[in-house]
Amino acid sequence: MVNKKIRDYGINIGTFSIGKNNSITDVKGVKVGHTTLDNGDIKTGVTVILPHDGNIFRKKLIAASHIINGFGKSTGLVQIEELGTIETPIVLTNTLSVGVAHETLIRYMLKQNEDIGDTTGTVNPIICECNDGVINDIRGLHIKQDHIFDAIEKCDVEFAEGNVGAGTGMICYGLKGGIGSSSRIIELGDKKYTVGILVLSNFGSLEDFILNGEHIGPKLVEKINQKNSTEEKGSIIILLATDIPLSSRQLKRIIKRVYPGISRTGSYTGNGSGEIVIGFSTANIIKHYEEDNVVDIKVINENKINKVFKAIVEATEEAILNSLICSTSSVGRDGKKVYSLNELI
Amino acid sequence: MVNKKIRDYGINIGTFSIGKNNSITDVKGVKVGHTTLDNGDIKTGVTVILPHDGNIFRKKLIAASHIINGFGKSTGLVQIEELGTIETPIVLTNTLSVGVAHETLIRYMLKQNEDIGDTTGTVNPIICECNDGVINDIRGLHIKQDHIFDAIEKCDVEFAEGNVGAGTGMICYGLKGGIGSSSRIIELGDKKYTVGILVLSNFGSLEDFILNGEHIGPKLVEKINQKNSTEEKGSIIILLATDIPLSSRQLKRIIKRVYPGISRTGSYTGNGSGEIVIGFSTANIIKHYEEDNVVDIKVINENKINKVFKAIVEATEEAILNSLICSTSSVGRDGKKVYSLNELI
Amino acid sequence: MVNKKIRDYGINIGTFSIGKNNSITDVKGVKVGHTTLDNGDIKTGVTVILPHDGNIFRKKLIAASHIINGFGKSTGLVQIEELGTIETPIVLTNTLSVGVAHETLIRYMLKQNEDIGDTTGTVNPIICECNDGVINDIRGLHIKQDHIFDAIEKCDVEFAEGNVGAGTGMICYGLKGGIGSSSRIIELGDKKYTVGILVLSNFGSLEDFILNGEHIGPKLVEKINQKNSTEEKGSIIILLATDIPLSSRQLKRIIKRVYPGISRTGSYTGNGSGEIVIGFSTANIIKHYEEDNVVDIKVINENKINKVFKAIVEATEEAILNSLICSTSSVGRDGKKVYSLNELI
Amino acid sequence: MVNKKIRDYGINIGTFSIGKNNSITDVKGVKVGHTTLDNGDIKTGVTVILPHDGNIFRKKLIAASHIINGFGKSTGLVQIEELGTIETPIVLTNTLSVGVAHETLIRYMLKQNEDIGDTTGTVNPIICECNDGVINDIRGLHIKQDHIFDAIEKCDVEFAEGNVGAGTGMICYGLKGGIGSSSRIIELGDKKYTVGILVLSNFGSLEDFILNGEHIGPKLVEKINQKNSTEEKGSIIILLATDIPLSSRQLKRIIKRVYPGISRTGSYTGNGSGEIVIGFSTANIIKHYEEDNVVDIKVINENKINKVFKAIVEATEEAILNSLICSTSSVGRDGKKVYSLNELI
Repeated sequence: MVNKKIRDYGINIGTFSIGKNNSITDVKGVKVGHTTLDNGDIKTGVTVILPHDGNIFRKKLIAASHIINGFGKSTGLVQIEELGTIETPIVLTNTLSVGVAHETLIRYMLKQNEDIGDTTGTVNPIICECNDGVINDIRGLHIKQDHIFDAIEKCDVEFAEGNVGAGTGMICYGLKGGIGSSSRIIELGDKKYTVGILVLSNFGSLEDFILNGEHIGPKLVEKINQKNSTEEKGSIIILLATDIPLSSRQLKRIIKRVYPGISRTGSYTGNGSGEIVIGFSTANIIKHYEEDNVVDIKVINENKINKVFKAIVEATEEAILNSLICSTSSVGRDGKKVYSLNELI
Repeated sequence: MVNKKIRDYGINIGTFSIGKNNSITDVKGVKVGHTTLDNGDIKTGVTVILPHDGNIFRKKLIAASHIINGFGKSTGLVQIEELGTIETPIVLTNTLSVGVAHETLIRYMLKQNEDIGDTTGTVNPIICECNDGVINDIRGLHIKQDHIFDAIEKCDVEFAEGNVGAGTGMICYGLKGGIGSSSRIIELGDKKYTVGILVLSNFGSLEDFILNGEHIGPKLVEKINQKNSTEEKGSIIILLATDIPLSSRQLKRIIKRVYPGISRTGSYTGNGSGEIVIGFSTANIIKHYEEDNVVDIKVINENKINKVFKAIVEATEEAILNSLICSTSSVGRDGKKVYSLNELI
Repeated sequence: MVNKKIRDYGINIGTFSIGKNNSITDVKGVKVGHTTLDNGDIKTGVTVILPHDGNIFRKKLIAASHIINGFGKSTGLVQIEELGTIETPIVLTNTLSVGVAHETLIRYMLKQNEDIGDTTGTVNPIICECNDGVINDIRGLHIKQDHIFDAIEKCDVEFAEGNVGAGTGMICYGLKGGIGSSSRIIELGDKKYTVGILVLSNFGSLEDFILNGEHIGPKLVEKINQKNSTEEKGSIIILLATDIPLSSRQLKRIIKRVYPGISRTGSYTGNGSGEIVIGFSTANIIKHYEEDNVVDIKVINENKINKVFKAIVEATEEAILNSLICSTSSVGRDGKKVYSLNELI
Repeated sequence: MVNKKIRDYGINIGTFSIGKNNSITDVKGVKVGHTTLDNGDIKTGVTVILPHDGNIFRKKLIAASHIINGFGKSTGLVQIEELGTIETPIVLTNTLSVGVAHETLIRYMLKQNEDIGDTTGTVNPIICECNDGVINDIRGLHIKQDHIFDAIEKCDVEFAEGNVGAGTGMICYGLKGGIGSSSRIIELGDKKYTVGILVLSNFGSLEDFILNGEHIGPKLVEKINQKNSTEEKGSIIILLATDIPLSSRQLKRIIKRVYPGISRTGSYTGNGSGEIVIGFSTANIIKHYEEDNVVDIKVINENKINKVFKAIVEATEEAILNSLICSTSSVGRDGKKVYSLNELI
């Protein structure tokens, strides 16, 4: 894999050990795929996360969502909150392409499941978004159905980070942002579990940027001779996958801990930010056609959950840094350069 | 207008006086439009609510949403909850057409507002839905962009109720349901205010149906010789408009009172129900390009809010009954007749 | 037992069969006890619910709370929401006695558990309340620690309903209200489960009162020659116990269905109402000193949950009616008679 | 005033200017008072915040609460959430003394207001707490009514920070914690507004402690030769006062930004933490006996709210540091020394 991540620059966040690829796909069964559009002012794309290899509608996963700041347009959260499950892949794209992503994900689910909308109910598509309008001609609505189908097909354990897929046009701390991922290994007794984070980063002001505890934002502002500091805008989507057995309530508690992770990179969560977290656990399968009246689910002993909380904080911080360091410089619609962190340090 | 409503049958719900049309459009500025598809197994449509005559993106309205049961796929609620405003018309359609409605509403907003996604941020489309798959070939995804544009254009103070627009394929208490509306006049001091309700009804089992306090469901079951009672399924979308000055917190309190209104028609809110309420007040305008640092908003003296609560309960009950009584009998995809209340009583 | 309940008057609510005592204590292990103060203007008391026979702090139960209208002062809900468990008995009393009840429940828990506040953490007392100030000299703070200890000690499977315990000074629909209970049997496959409801009723205007579908409020207003209808005030506390295996998320969904049950007795949930629901399930024990890293919990197959929803609605309606019919007439601090339903019908 | 704060050590957090006393009482009308018990194993106390000089029950303030982690026993939050106001002073004390604080605050309110519980409704006491059981004999329930009355009487603009009042027995990042405060000046146009923060700090593990961006926790662990790092436990209560005109929704958004402030001191918010935030604004008075049907309230133009968000983050971080640096070393019930930050650096 070609991702040169923040650890490859000698910067290690936190103390937990990491998974094989330091990626959300270290959680067994999880795959990620991109479609990237990069052509002049068209700099946008799609990123898809497959939660597991099987039929997700028939084999739902326990899930939870959390809204840090709700200036966002993601879909599917209402039902996650009510039922505590996901039943589709998760699609990330730009804000104005939520509609086409929604329709396409439904078409994908209908094709896979002849029963949906016929002999059984409908389906809850999960689309998350950030606004890439500074770099991308977002009004052009350039994402088409094929782009989404392609991203689904390309899903794999290995995937690029930085300005690819939905991350193509994103800006984070005034630098080129986008897709970033990381993972942590958590030992409970003699068993090892994995948590993985994937972010779509599109938030923060450069002056606020903190790199591994060092407040380097102001220096970078000076370096690129930026006259006017810009107000914090934009959003971040954070996806968490794990194989730890969890109830949706426990998952919700866990995904709330991404906020300290974000905070340690310097942001104060601006007014215009859509900061949305979705987490799922692969440890229990909730069958669509369950026959039993009562079912067993496995959950973590909550007295042991602190380890998971702590791992999430550092994994989130690292995934954001990876989204920055894996990106390459780009150019805004106004012709101004958007620097990559890589080019500046 | 051709709606023969429940009051025209001598059934008056509650004690408040009603507005001119006993409709959500009694709230000044509110308009409603439909596109209806009714051709064989294609029985679906679109209903649009315009909150006011001006540019809604630039002149936002204070709003609130409430989720009674979240087995639903409506979009836009996250941002309403965070910011307490709406900035687009509200589109109702079938569950699997949320994507096309979302994309089209964005296209409509982009056309009206050259700044969106260019010099200012994006926009939060509000799409609400119910599953009309028993009557309609919902898998066919028959709603197209033009249907939505048409419904927007047709918005007017007068509009049909029953099985029209998004209500075309809906089933409520085992009977033909769909669009229903009502209004109430509320006096605060010497001023008269209006609240209006519009429902998209698609919930309930016939056996549970209560008509103005009388539990006539079981009799109707017998009348149509239904062998097996069906489980409560489906959903209800409830929109509330008012010219009473309200904060979003107050609006949220008010729209929670639709639940007693629903309950009095007999439902217990089944597992599979997406019961979503959105309310807005036309009394304050929140400018997109506000210049002042501090703004005045008018709100109701909360000691006087009980009147509004009570009016909402009866208006909701009546709007549901109107959705039933204004509908005509239809036929399910399985060939079985779906009776109208009208035909049965 | 001396309770002459609404069924004893030939009024049967709903269709589910009831438990042995038609009471919350039909759920195995649940017990209820009262202390009643009835002396002149001192008309108040305490009601305690023991969730099970063992050490509740060490053997916590899965629980959930739901706030219908939050004009109330109950304590302990924050932690129930976070952790999904209860770890103390539940105490009901008047609004201004929450403090003494809180302190006493802590003393009771400290006595039972030498580890609390020493070698382990603290404890979350659950106190719920309604305002009995129309009948009771609530400013006198007449509830003392012994009253609460006594109520705990008196907990039993059989217990009085009506104006006893915390219900002594309550008014419901302008009539004498207080403690009411009911239960339902739910069959899942070949197993029978029980849900029980206990209410502390203190809400509603007489003119709105509906008795088993019949809107008899206005007739009762006339009968007692009430000149001025009063605004809806007051509150209702609803406790739900069950032996159905449930997660806290499922329990939360279930306890939300008490609202249709309340609604069917006529209320629109006034501004000043503290309407709080707490539910717990005895089916899983969450150990305070759990050693395992991962634990199994049993939960209902959510496709089967509609039965439970429906049972809750009718059990709630019936418990409220029992709180009315089991009460005897009383006198307010202003000397006006507060009629019992029993005396009027 | 004797507080030697973190700024007095040359450490300045953030870029906003501070109020006169760098304290919550820089918000006009706000006062703070303590009662401290420090005698052997009895190391606990009470801290009271008066929101304004007048009758708070009759002149309520717009307020909001936010729960970061709900493993806590604070009271009054349910009604703040529903009505968006506070109507009493706020009392801070240890976890097991919530009951006596609740009863005493009610007695205080009854004395001040002859109408409460007689001719008008009841009152919603706000009590917040942390567990000081490591240092204090919390099981002894040493807080008595007089302690709380005393703290109310002592309320003043100047007040001590560190291990005083409710902070007497608190531990933060393994160091002596307690009461800390700070303020920030925010310019909106040509007007200056103040936000003030007061914390009761009782959370975090020493190894995680970050001082103004520097992760000094591990060095401090070494310095005091601590063998076993302890798990994050405990809680933090954060109160925010401001004279900025705000709706309760806006206040809620603002107080959510204390979380990044907490995070920058190193914590990941452990399982056992009760992290509760309450904020109020003195800019609008909500009259208990309001006569008008519609009232004007002033609110901030939300496009300008980012400044407030940013100021809150740094004010919170600084208030926590002040709670540490103003404390003096103490001794736990187990005889182990609890170092002050002051002694270590």
